[in-house]
Amino acid sequence: MSILEKIKSPCDLHDLSPAELSALSGELRDKIVRTVAANGGHLGSNLGVVELTVALLRSFDLERDRIVWDVGHQSYSYKLLTGRQTEFEHLREFGGCCGFQVRNSSKYECYSSGHAGVAISAALGMCAAQDAENPGKVVAVVGDGALGSGVALEGLNQVRDHGKNLIIVLNDNKMAISRNVGAISRCLNRIMVSRRYRWIKKCAKAIISILPKSQAITRAVSRLEDSAKNLLLPGGPFQELGIRYLGPINGHNIADMERTFRAVQRDDRPVIIHVVTEKGRGYAPAVAEPERFHGIGKFDIASGKALSASQPGFSAAFGQAVCDLAEKYPDLTAVVAAMTGGVGLEKFARKFPERFYDVGMAEGHAVSFSSGLAASGRRVICAVYATFMQRSLDNIFHDVALMDLPVVFALDRAGLVEDGPTHHGIYDVGFLLGLPNMTIMQPACEAEVAPMLEMALQQNSPVVIRYPRGSSNAARRSNIPVVPLEYGRSALWRDGRDLAIYASGAEAVRALQIADLLAEEYQLSAKVVNVRFLKPFDRATLEKDLQQMDVFTLEDHVATSGLGAVASAVASGLKNSTHCLKTLGLPADGVVSFGAVDKLRASLGLDVDSLARHIACCCGGTPHSPVRAANA
Amino acid sequence: MSILEKIKSPCDLHDLSPAELSALSGELRDKIVRTVAANGGHLGSNLGVVELTVALLRSFDLERDRIVWDVGHQSYSYKLLTGRQTEFEHLREFGGCCGFQVRNSSKYECYSSGHAGVAISAALGMCAAQDAENPGKVVAVVGDGALGSGVALEGLNQVRDHGKNLIIVLNDNKMAISRNVGAISRCLNRIMVSRRYRWIKKCAKAIISILPKSQAITRAVSRLEDSAKNLLLPGGPFQELGIRYLGPINGHNIADMERTFRAVQRDDRPVIIHVVTEKGRGYAPAVAEPERFHGIGKFDIASGKALSASQPGFSAAFGQAVCDLAEKYPDLTAVVAAMTGGVGLEKFARKFPERFYDVGMAEGHAVSFSSGLAASGRRVICAVYATFMQRSLDNIFHDVALMDLPVVFALDRAGLVEDGPTHHGIYDVGFLLGLPNMTIMQPACEAEVAPMLEMALQQNSPVVIRYPRGSSNAARRSNIPVVPLEYGRSALWRDGRDLAIYASGAEAVRALQIADLLAEEYQLSAKVVNVRFLKPFDRATLEKDLQQMDVFTLEDHVATSGLGAVASAVASGLKNSTHCLKTLGLPADGVVSFGAVDKLRASLGLDVDSLARHIACCCGGTPHSPVRAANA
Repeated sequence: MSILEKIKSPCDLHDLSPAELSALSGELRDKIVRTVAANGGHLGSNLGVVELTVALLRSFDLERDRIVWDVGHQSYSYKLLTGRQTEFEHLREFGGCCGFQVRNSSKYECYSSGHAGVAISAALGMCAAQDAENPGKVVAVVGDGALGSGVALEGLNQVRDHGKNLIIVLNDNKMAISRNVGAISRCLNRIMVSRRYRWIKKCAKAIISILPKSQAITRAVSRLEDSAKNLLLPGGPFQELGIRYLGPINGHNIADMERTFRAVQRDDRPVIIHVVTEKGRGYAPAVAEPERFHGIGKFDIASGKALSASQPGFSAAFGQAVCDLAEKYPDLTAVVAAMTGGVGLEKFARKFPERFYDVGMAEGHAVSFSSGLAASGRRVICAVYATFMQRSLDNIFHDVALMDLPVVFALDRAGLVEDGPTHHGIYDVGFLLGLPNMTIMQPACEAEVAPMLEMALQQNSPVVIRYPRGSSNAARRSNIPVVPLEYGRSALWRDGRDLAIYASGAEAVRALQIADLLAEEYQLSAKVVNVRFLKPFDRATLEKDLQQMDVFTLEDHVATSGLGAVASAVASGLKNSTHCLKTLGLPADGVVSFGAVDKLRASLGLDVDSLARHIACCCGGTPHSPVRAANA
Repeated sequence: MSILEKIKSPCDLHDLSPAELSALSGELRDKIVRTVAANGGHLGSNLGVVELTVALLRSFDLERDRIVWDVGHQSYSYKLLTGRQTEFEHLREFGGCCGFQVRNSSKYECYSSGHAGVAISAALGMCAAQDAENPGKVVAVVGDGALGSGVALEGLNQVRDHGKNLIIVLNDNKMAISRNVGAISRCLNRIMVSRRYRWIKKCAKAIISILPKSQAITRAVSRLEDSAKNLLLPGGPFQELGIRYLGPINGHNIADMERTFRAVQRDDRPVIIHVVTEKGRGYAPAVAEPERFHGIGKFDIASGKALSASQPGFSAAFGQAVCDLAEKYPDLTAVVAAMTGGVGLEKFARKFPERFYDVGMAEGHAVSFSSGLAASGRRVICAVYATFMQRSLDNIFHDVALMDLPVVFALDRAGLVEDGPTHHGIYDVGFLLGLPNMTIMQPACEAEVAPMLEMALQQNSPVVIRYPRGSSNAARRSNIPVVPLEYGRSALWRDGRDLAIYASGAEAVRALQIADLLAEEYQLSAKVVNVRFLKPFDRATLEKDLQQMDVFTLEDHVATSGLGAVASAVASGLKNSTHCLKTLGLPADGVVSFGAVDKLRASLGLDVDSLARHIACCCGGTPHSPVRAANA
């Protein structure tokens, strides 16, 4: 039995010797690498915080203290050490172990978190709610990248006021998915390359080298080193904000961290502990390519190579289109928020560095900055994941839509994603629909991305283009029709007599499959309309169809506030209509889980088979194959 | 002719003597006080920046440089000095002069701004777009309160990277509508009360007192004082962020400011100039009560008293309800973002200071902080204006809705407001509707606020309660029915045979008026339903009515993403319906202007008369009074 297997709860960590702790760290890394290689997941950050997690769990008493992980995707070791080793085998699988923290999924998980930067605010709220009966410490573990985000900075500005029991553990790995940017990041670097810091380190090393080797002596020198650092190093911007600063501490030295974590527990003022870790630690490919191994699919452990060749997909089509259009439009400028690779813009960033801005995890700033660029005559593409763009909805409204500025928002990962509830991009349209001057488009397949992007750049107005993670799989079908793009018009993809499916984005490709099934199995002739524009919406086409047949909308967004809402508004106004509209999409009630997207869809009755059956049932189709229908 | 009247453009400022500049400042103050007393508006901040504005316009060349006012409501002097004196007579009147900056409304207004904190990001974007042909300086004028907002801090973190032509003028008046909070605010104070600062000031004063009085000598000593300050004073957190800090400078001394503004123009690195002003300067009542005079209605100049006794209204009903409920629920806690008075919580804040948190202009933090409180067992009410809550939509989603935490969001100023486009609260429901676990209620009148709030506190889930500015005017009507509040149910307020009006919030009171008109003028019997819950929506009642009559929804929100969308989703799914649904509300296309709300409504055809006529026209009502109908 390995050491890890013996750890049933954090208490079991207390009796381990330094050698055992070191072995345990190795076992944790091994387990994490094997599981992520098999299931996909967040690798680099988790390998970085192995020792930090062990030190936290040995230093704090989770019956009394609470740990809030900012972006819970770095908590794999934490899950493994708090009684969830069996569950962890099913990491990120539907019904298995979530890759993020989920409040109350265990008594050790007190806060759900997937978006970076909120932990300081949440932990401050927990501190403020404390009273004499609940005096525990609240530990917020925050990455250096997250410190560039507005909410983290808003939180830091308040720490002094409400945070007497707050301990911020700043996990500094120099990364914010991509390499970190901004002045705070530079402050942290400055501390570590400062002459005083190097001098202290050098002295400590020298002392240890001349004294006899003993644990007691090493510990004593370590303590001396800590005192010297705390006395001589500047607290960076934190001191200015009234927060005591301790560090930097080697985030792979459990004993050093424990000593500090224990010491600060006696204090009743907020403190920030600067812990330096290495992203990907212990697995060479992840150290070499930190951005690729931040979040990764299944891979071969020996080589680090991805197991399934990733399909080109929407992000790649977008990245290529931006590069091509950049040649044509010399004023084209792209802005991203810490996601250069994720949104497919590495090539553009390399080729046109003077027209590319990565502002770090600062989505609000990214949009207002884009607005400033656009107000000065640039054509701006601001590319962000749909779920993170939720952070800048007010900026889209206030800084872009109201002024009618030409910023194109490329919302990647719109729709369901494997990561789960915190990351599904299924709410954005609800807000965007109401905004003035806004065009909202969805390409149904990769081939539609470039023409839509060019059309967007030619508007002198804000445009949102949203598309899902991965591929539409259109390439696997031979019957994708080519209909020229026309502003504000839907495209008829397949004609039919009995009913129509109005589908937005890649759902249109699935609608073709549904139409095939409806014909084969239920003798129903379904029209398929690719709804390219949610705003302005092609009312006329829908009104005409509703005179003749029932219409089903299909979308990868909450139906009550997306395409379903837009189409309903048209349908509900028609008088004496004998046909009705049914909206198919994600529910506004209940949280959609995590796991493979096809499993998520199936769990919601949104897989192609269920949808065909449901539509057929509504339209009174005759099942061709009674056996199959009976199975339904 | 006054000096002010002679200023047709900023150029005319250059030839004025110090004495004339001083007189001009007085005239500006006089004009601002008189205009705001007559029309309402933002008084305190505008009186504070009179000299600052003069100094900016004398120091920068707006043919080449740009000034971005963060929250444009402080730009009255700027408007008066850049050719808009006639227009200014109609400040905040429909069709008149907007109280905020509006891009391209004049060649001197380069950016629209109503929400605080974005100017740094926008100005950075402008700097980044600069090239050899456009080398001007970009000046962002930012209040100290705005520095606590996430987007401003995100921007500050990036200044060093893109801001070589950026000049941030930090207008420090110690206020963020309410008194400012947070660590940055304390840093600024610390600088000003530092012993070194006081020592420098004292030396300068001493030198001037012993030397012969001459302008040249005063100027020389002033320069010496500046150098000493820049050499000896800490740059606060700004220096840590790589931004050069200059100041503090007396924001009422034009010559001092000009000298600094001119000096920094030769530099090519970003700089922050700390200017200290007094909110309300020159008008005693505004100095004495800065929060009341931040934004104010018509008032008597001599006494400073409001001209129309403000009606109790929704904010007051809310404030009273929170106080009452606080007695009953000892865990009730309230969080606001710099709007204690605005949302009606002064009394609560005084009475229960240990359960009240004003976090400053930091809406994202306010919500995540509320979430932390709720996760620790508190019952939390987070009260913010609907338009500013847009800044925290992601926090509402990620930190509250997903975890199903019991936070009640009280959205004040939902619907149209006099301030105009940046401040209308007409978009929020679109996003909120999609969120899991969320209840969305609207009280139709003040009497419904307390029961709704108590019901909200009893849910163990997130709840949004939204209500408009001012009063429902329900008190003026005798026929407001009393229907007990039932979760998820609409209330029948008036029965009718020919058609139904489904109205949310205070629109239900207006719907009663419309129903009266429909009966009197068009012989139509209209049912009025008070839609108390947008989510969960009372489908059954609507479905039943749609079997019998046409239904009109009426709301103070964009109709395509609010009640109209919710009701349409129900209506569109009904088969063989002979009746239809029409949605009346704000348009999703075009920007709704500023001015008196009744004028805004009339301009959109949403006044009671127009609505009655429109509904009658749809339903074939017979006009009782042909003359009136012919006028229509």
